[in-house]
Formats: sequence, structure tokens, C-alpha cells
Amino acid sequence: MELQQALSALDLLQRKMAAYHHAMGLIYFDGVTVAPAGTAQNRGETLAILSEESYKLTTCQETEELLNQLWEAQDELDEAHRRMVFLMRKSLVEMRKIPMEEFVAYQRLVNEAENVWHKAKAENDYPAFAPYIDQIVAANKRFAAYIHPEMDAYEHCLDSYEEGLTRATCDAFFASLRESLVPLIQAVCASKNQPDLSFMRFHAPIEKQRQLSDYLMQVLGMDRNHCMIAETEHPFTTGFTKYDCRITTHYHEDNLLSSLYSVVHEGGHGMYDMGVKDEFAYTCLGGGVSMAVHESQSRFFENIIGRSRAFVSLIAPELRKLFPELQGIDDEMLYKAFNESHPSLIRTEADELTYCQHIMVRYELEKALFDGKITSKELPQEWNRLYKEYLGVDVPDDTRGVLQDTHWSGGMFGYFPSYALGSAYGAQLLRKMQETIDVYGSVEKGDLGPVRKWLEENIWQHGCLYTPGVLMEKAFQGKFDAAYYVAYLKEKFTDLYSL
Amino acid sequence: MELQQALSALDLLQRKMAAYHHAMGLIYFDGVTVAPAGTAQNRGETLAILSEESYKLTTCQETEELLNQLWEAQDELDEAHRRMVFLMRKSLVEMRKIPMEEFVAYQRLVNEAENVWHKAKAENDYPAFAPYIDQIVAANKRFAAYIHPEMDAYEHCLDSYEEGLTRATCDAFFASLRESLVPLIQAVCASKNQPDLSFMRFHAPIEKQRQLSDYLMQVLGMDRNHCMIAETEHPFTTGFTKYDCRITTHYHEDNLLSSLYSVVHEGGHGMYDMGVKDEFAYTCLGGGVSMAVHESQSRFFENIIGRSRAFVSLIAPELRKLFPELQGIDDEMLYKAFNESHPSLIRTEADELTYCQHIMVRYELEKALFDGKITSKELPQEWNRLYKEYLGVDVPDDTRGVLQDTHWSGGMFGYFPSYALGSAYGAQLLRKMQETIDVYGSVEKGDLGPVRKWLEENIWQHGCLYTPGVLMEKAFQGKFDAAYYVAYLKEKFTDLYSL
Repeated sequence: MELQQALSALDLLQRKMAAYHHAMGLIYFDGVTVAPAGTAQNRGETLAILSEESYKLTTCQETEELLNQLWEAQDELDEAHRRMVFLMRKSLVEMRKIPMEEFVAYQRLVNEAENVWHKAKAENDYPAFAPYIDQIVAANKRFAAYIHPEMDAYEHCLDSYEEGLTRATCDAFFASLRESLVPLIQAVCASKNQPDLSFMRFHAPIEKQRQLSDYLMQVLGMDRNHCMIAETEHPFTTGFTKYDCRITTHYHEDNLLSSLYSVVHEGGHGMYDMGVKDEFAYTCLGGGVSMAVHESQSRFFENIIGRSRAFVSLIAPELRKLFPELQGIDDEMLYKAFNESHPSLIRTEADELTYCQHIMVRYELEKALFDGKITSKELPQEWNRLYKEYLGVDVPDDTRGVLQDTHWSGGMFGYFPSYALGSAYGAQLLRKMQETIDVYGSVEKGDLGPVRKWLEENIWQHGCLYTPGVLMEKAFQGKFDAAYYVAYLKEKFTDLYSL
Repeated sequence: MELQQALSALDLLQRKMAAYHHAMGLIYFDGVTVAPAGTAQNRGETLAILSEESYKLTTCQETEELLNQLWEAQDELDEAHRRMVFLMRKSLVEMRKIPMEEFVAYQRLVNEAENVWHKAKAENDYPAFAPYIDQIVAANKRFAAYIHPEMDAYEHCLDSYEEGLTRATCDAFFASLRESLVPLIQAVCASKNQPDLSFMRFHAPIEKQRQLSDYLMQVLGMDRNHCMIAETEHPFTTGFTKYDCRITTHYHEDNLLSSLYSVVHEGGHGMYDMGVKDEFAYTCLGGGVSMAVHESQSRFFENIIGRSRAFVSLIAPELRKLFPELQGIDDEMLYKAFNESHPSLIRTEADELTYCQHIMVRYELEKALFDGKITSKELPQEWNRLYKEYLGVDVPDDTRGVLQDTHWSGGMFGYFPSYALGSAYGAQLLRKMQETIDVYGSVEKGDLGPVRKWLEENIWQHGCLYTPGVLMEKAFQGKFDAAYYVAYLKEKFTDLYSL
């Protein structure tokens, strides 16, 4: 095959993969937003068949021959095509190591598990869900052994979400966070300058919250022509391609902030998904490069922007308009209330300061499950023990405990550290950005343009062109250093609580 | 291959086809319900690729060999498998006659056309949509010539929706309807006993109408575990499989009846889709057999059940509860208002008596387009001329004229006669049913069970096992005769208008 022909074949192959990605993504999205309750099994049948087709496309001989030919001609390829071929060959080699029947059975398993988890969470019925934990962990360990027999299974999981991430790095990162943040958390708890939260206890009608979501999307500068908000149990974002992105939220009538910050968080994911350059759409470079980089965007918007004085002041008038209960509450009171920090039960509603403690609990439990130190049987009691140890809180039931997150039901072991790492990336991005942009000055004026532009140039447009490590070092113009994150939190919470 | 092996391969092949049907159906459904406005092109890319895969599956050599082997062994197959092999071979032979590139290009064309139509209808911009009419008609004519070069192209279209239906049959059927119904329509218009409609002019909040939809689904006995209601521009029903069915409606705050009867109509489609026997799920027999039979179910529920005295009395208390404006209006007044008949502009909102006139307009126009007597350029004026001739109304704009229906944008030429034929089937089914069931007595008591059971036994469970003709003759225990429909309408409207 001529090189030009091979490149056309590569393009077509990637378009096909993008089509399967779209179809399967939509089936998932439909399942957790509007689909009738009894349709999960049917969805599982379809997903199993489509993943089998997608698996074949990724690993078939024709694909292998094409990728080998292009790999040999890599000197003639531009940077983007070289990266595409590299990533697709990696997928091919790794997927080939997993027997197709096991791969398909696993898709069925997680589809079923997510359905059982939804019900189990609603009914506080951990035993119904427990068997899936063991099966999913076992499958992930098997897959890890197929792909990287020389590697620790959990480390393989970490690496699959953040290329190059090791247990040693995570252990050191979390240890340094704990060392700096635990005293800060204690000081915040002991502070006499606790914010007034009484005015936040009001009923926020869902219809008004929907209007708020629309307003927030507008403030964030999101293109509604290519992005919608749906409602689900556990908010997430999925980009079928850069041209069709879905963010989701969950409205709690007694908790305005829950959906408010879900929308801003998922908005960050959405902007990243939609911000990749057009020529990468419909290719394997056309999405976020890693979960930590993704979370660096979502948590940047949620916290560093969304929970800043500037942003709170910006949205305060709209909040007072939609929720008359907030009339007479000044911006500074809102800012303090929105940043109130105390050890709590639910990760997604945790404040910025205690958030990483929630991640550490999960990280420890995942290691223990993969190392065979505990099984699903011991998981709830270990969860509760660690929540007591790390956050000082008593877990009243599994719904607000071990069943709170969807990740494990979807097989996403090794994902959680990305949230903490992404948060730390975000703080370092802020410092870099501030060298050339008046970040909070622009936000206060309601202009997120400069921030969006900086992120688009430095992060979004590149898609998967670089490894996460290279991408972040380019953006930082230096090495990653968790000290920026610690410094950011110290400064913010020392001010908030007048420490 | 052993016979048992071949049957397993047939089962797997059909499951794959069902998976593609599900994925493509969902992408369509998503597109016309919740998807952001700018995502149509992206959806088109995915649909084009999936239809190409589905086309290959239907027509590839492996499929051909399998079907030929089973066809030769047909004496050893049960009735259902014999029918599956027959239908799949028919698809294979017909699809092979259409060059794949043309097939795929057509999928793109109708996807784009539907998107343009939505916008054109909203903006009363027929010229934007017109070129698609010509392209779609040309493509359908080309396809007809590939498949049945000996057959009239429009007759091929009719036959594709209702096996065996000819222009001669349609012409005779419509002529007999016109002959009997035109004098009846004139008598109704001239009657001094016109119903009071003044109490129907009130604002019906969408939230209340949504509650009404839920109530109607319950009255119809629909399984919400496998069927949901979504909102769209032009209501339709799609069954991904019998286990996952989606009906849709459109709420007009100034017109309560529009959505009320959409829900009951689409509910009829949904019950048929969900009522096929379990062993036909995931096979090519697992859906309604033809559009006329489908419409016989939807229009049966909409009109023969839904617009009966018994049904109106049944739902009247709920209507008065949801819409206080109706308190003090007795059942008979509601019944008369809900059956008010007058020649009008919009097919989907036409009354039962004048409905077929709307179909005849479309039937005449489709023939003229296919026969090359008119092109898209003349279509609006011809539409308007025929509305004046057949219904006596002046069409004020294309939004309420030639742009009102989605069918042509989706390439569904030859579909419209199904509505009229289905309506007539329904009346004959009623008479047959009444030989063993007290239809209206049960409905009045709120028990649709006997009607559902009769239809499930005689129609729904069979899926595509029989041809439409055989199925209906079994249900009728005799030949189809439009006289039942005419008699039903005469009796009903003579009573309603005291003629």
C-alpha cells in the first residue's frame, strides 16, 4: 500500500472507532439518564456485541498490518500521525493479550454491576452489590497480568489512567499532602471564625436550579450547540466526539451547592473535550489525554475558579435573583459559606481542603483489595474505619459510605488518585497562568475568555498528542510540584478562617 | 456446518443486527429528543458508518452461505425459522442490488434532510428543504429500479411498507372512502348540532400535561419499566427491541388534546412493539410486520378506543382533577368536543372523520412526484391546491402546509397510505373483537385487559411471522373489507351530530 493510501485507511479506521465510541457512549449515557429501569439487560446485550466489534476492529490482522506498515514509515509521518500509530499499536498489543471472550464478558459484567449498584445505593443494600466488587477486581487483576505480567496489578491500573504513575509516586504525593494538610484541617476545625451557614438552609426548587445551570453554562462560555446538561444519579461527562458533549448533574432541593458545583466541575471536563483541535476530531487523539489531566480541568473550574471570591461575586446577583432567600446576604458571606470546610461523608460534596482525604481512603482500599488484604466482605468496615481515621467521621450507612461512588461498579480501579493529582496540577496551572493573565480580575468582570484561551492553547487543543507528563511539563514550563497545591490551599484557608 | 450450528450462527447474526438496530435507533431518538442543535453532522458520521457495518452484515458472503444452507434445509426448520431465513434472504438479495456507497450516502442524506426539515419547519422556510425532496425521491426511484426494475417505482415504495399493496388497491380503497365519507363530512359540517368547544380554550401547563401522560400510560396498561415518554417536535415511537421502547409526544399549552391523543396513539405502537413473543426478541421477527398493521394498532387506540364515549368517561375525572377549567363539564360534552369534526390544516390533529382526506392529499402528491408530474418546486402550490379541493381549507404557510410532516425528510414515501389502511383495519378488528368481548363495557370500567389480551393473541405476539395480509385475515377470520370502517364512521358521526 502506498503511504497516502495507508494514511487514508488509518483515517477511516479511526472514524469507525469513533463511531463505535459514539454509539456505546450514547447507550451508556441513555442508560443512566432517561432509559426505563428494566432496560439494562437489553443494553448489556447491545454493548457486548458492539464492544466485540470494536475489539475486532482494534486487533484484527488488517489493522495490525496497516499499523506495522505505518510504524515502519514513521520518519515520513508528522508528529500527530506518529502518535496515532503509536497509541493504536499499544492498544492492539494490549488488547490482544486479553482473550476476546473475557473482554466481552467484562463489558457485560460492568454493565450489570452499574445497574445493581444504582439499586443497591438507593436501597442501602451493600450485600447485593458486594459480589460484583470481587468479580471486577479479579477481572482487572487478570487483565493486568495479561498485559503487564511483570508489573504490580494495581500499579498497572494507576498507569492505565495516568501513564507512568506508580504506587511509590502516589504514596509520596499523598504522604506530603497529609503532612501539610492535616494540621491545616485541624486548625480550620479549631478556628473560632466559622462561617454562617444558616442562610443556606432553604428549599431550592429544581426548576430554579435548572435555570441556574443554564446561567452557569453561559458564564463558563460553553457552546450549548454542542453540549447539553442531563440529569443522573452520579454526575459525569461524556464526549461522544468534540462536537457532541454531554454533561450531567443531580439536583438536591435541600442543597443548592451540590448541583451548582457539579455543573462547574463537569463543565471543566466538557470544555476540555470540546476544546481539542478540529483536525484531531474522529481520531484517537481527539479527547482528554488522561484522567488526572481531565480532573485538573474540572477541579480547576470547580474550585480554583468556581470557589474563588471573584467567581462567587460574579454569580451572586443571579443567585439572589433565582433564590430570594439569599437577598441581603453579601458576597463575602456567600464566599465563606461556599468554602466552608469540615470533614464530611460524601466525596463529591466535600470542600476543597478535606477533599483529598476522601481520595486517600479510596486509594488505601483499592491497594488492599488488589493486594488481597481484604475482600468485598471487609470493605464496608474498612471504609468506615478509614473515614473515622482520616476524616474523624462516623459513617451511618453504606449509601453514604462505600456505595456512594459509581467508579468501582464501572471497573474504574486506579482512577481516584487522578482527582487529587488533577487538583494539584490545577494549582500549578493557576500560578503559571497568573504570570501572564489577571485570572481573578477577568473572572470578576465576568470574562472567562483569557482563562479559557490559556487552557485551550496549553492543554485542550493538544488532545492526546503528548503524554500527560510531557503535556503538563510544557504547560508548567517545568516539573510538577505538589508544593504549589499546598501553598494555594494554605493561603486560601488561612485567609478564610483568619488563622 | 451441522444444522444446529447453522441455527446458532443464525441466532448470533440476528443478535448482531438487533444490536446495530438498537444503536442506530437510539442515535436517531437522541437526535430528535435531547441532543444539542449542532450535533446533527456528527450523528450523520456515526450513522453512516454503522449502517455500512449493518449493510455488510446483511449482505456479506458468510451471511449468504449461511442463509442458502438453511434455505435448502427448510423442511427441517420450524415455521419461525423458515420465516426468518426467508426474510433475511429477501433483505440480502434486495440490499445487494443497491451499491453500498449509494446506500450509505442515502443514510447521510436523510439524516441531513431531517435536520434541515426541523429548521425549515420552525422558520417556515420551504426553499431550504426543497432540494432534499428531489434528491430523496430520485434516490428512492433509483433504489426501486435496482430492486424491482419491472415494477412501478411508487408501487415498490407502497409494497415496502405493506407487502403486496398496489396503486390499484390504494386507488380503489381511497375512491370508496371518498364516495362514502365526503357526503358524511358535508352533512357533519352542515349539521346544526355543533359541539360546544369554548370550554376547551384554556392554558394547559406542560407539567400538568406530563402528569396526564403518565396517567394515560397507566390506563393503557403500559409497562413503564420498558417504555418511556420523551418530548420531540413530531411524535413517533421506536422500539429498540421489545424490551426497550420509547414513545414521544409534543406538548402544546393551548391544545390539551394534541398530546393526549399523541400519547394514546404512540402507546398503541408501543404496545405492539412490546407485545411480540419473547422468543422473537433479538430476531428479525421481533417487531411489527408492516406500517399499516402498526397504524391499525395506534389508530385503534387513538380513535376507536381513545375517542369512544367509554374512554372519555373513564379519563374525565382525572382530566377535571388536573385541569380545573373542565370542572362542571359533563362527560357527554367532553365526548362531543373530543370528536369535533371539521376540515383542518394539520393531519396529526385532524379528527377521525376527515383524517383520510389528509392522507389522500399526500398519496396524490407522492404519485405525482414519482411520476415526474411535479418536482419539489411545484409541491407547495399543489399541496395547497389539494387541501382546498379535498378539505376546503386555505393553507396559510408552509409550516402548516407541506412542511408539517417529518416523513418525506426521512425518505418515507409510500408510508402515508398505511395510516388510512390501518384505520380501516382497526374498525374491522373492533367488529371481530366485539363477537367475544364487551369492548366498551370493559373500557368504561377502566379495564383494558380484555382488549389488550385479544390484540396480543391475534396480532402483537406474532411479530413478523406472517405477511400482513395473512395476519389480518387470520385476525378477521375473513377478507379485509373497507365497508366496516365506513359503517363505523357513519354510525359514530350520525350519532354525534344527530344526522
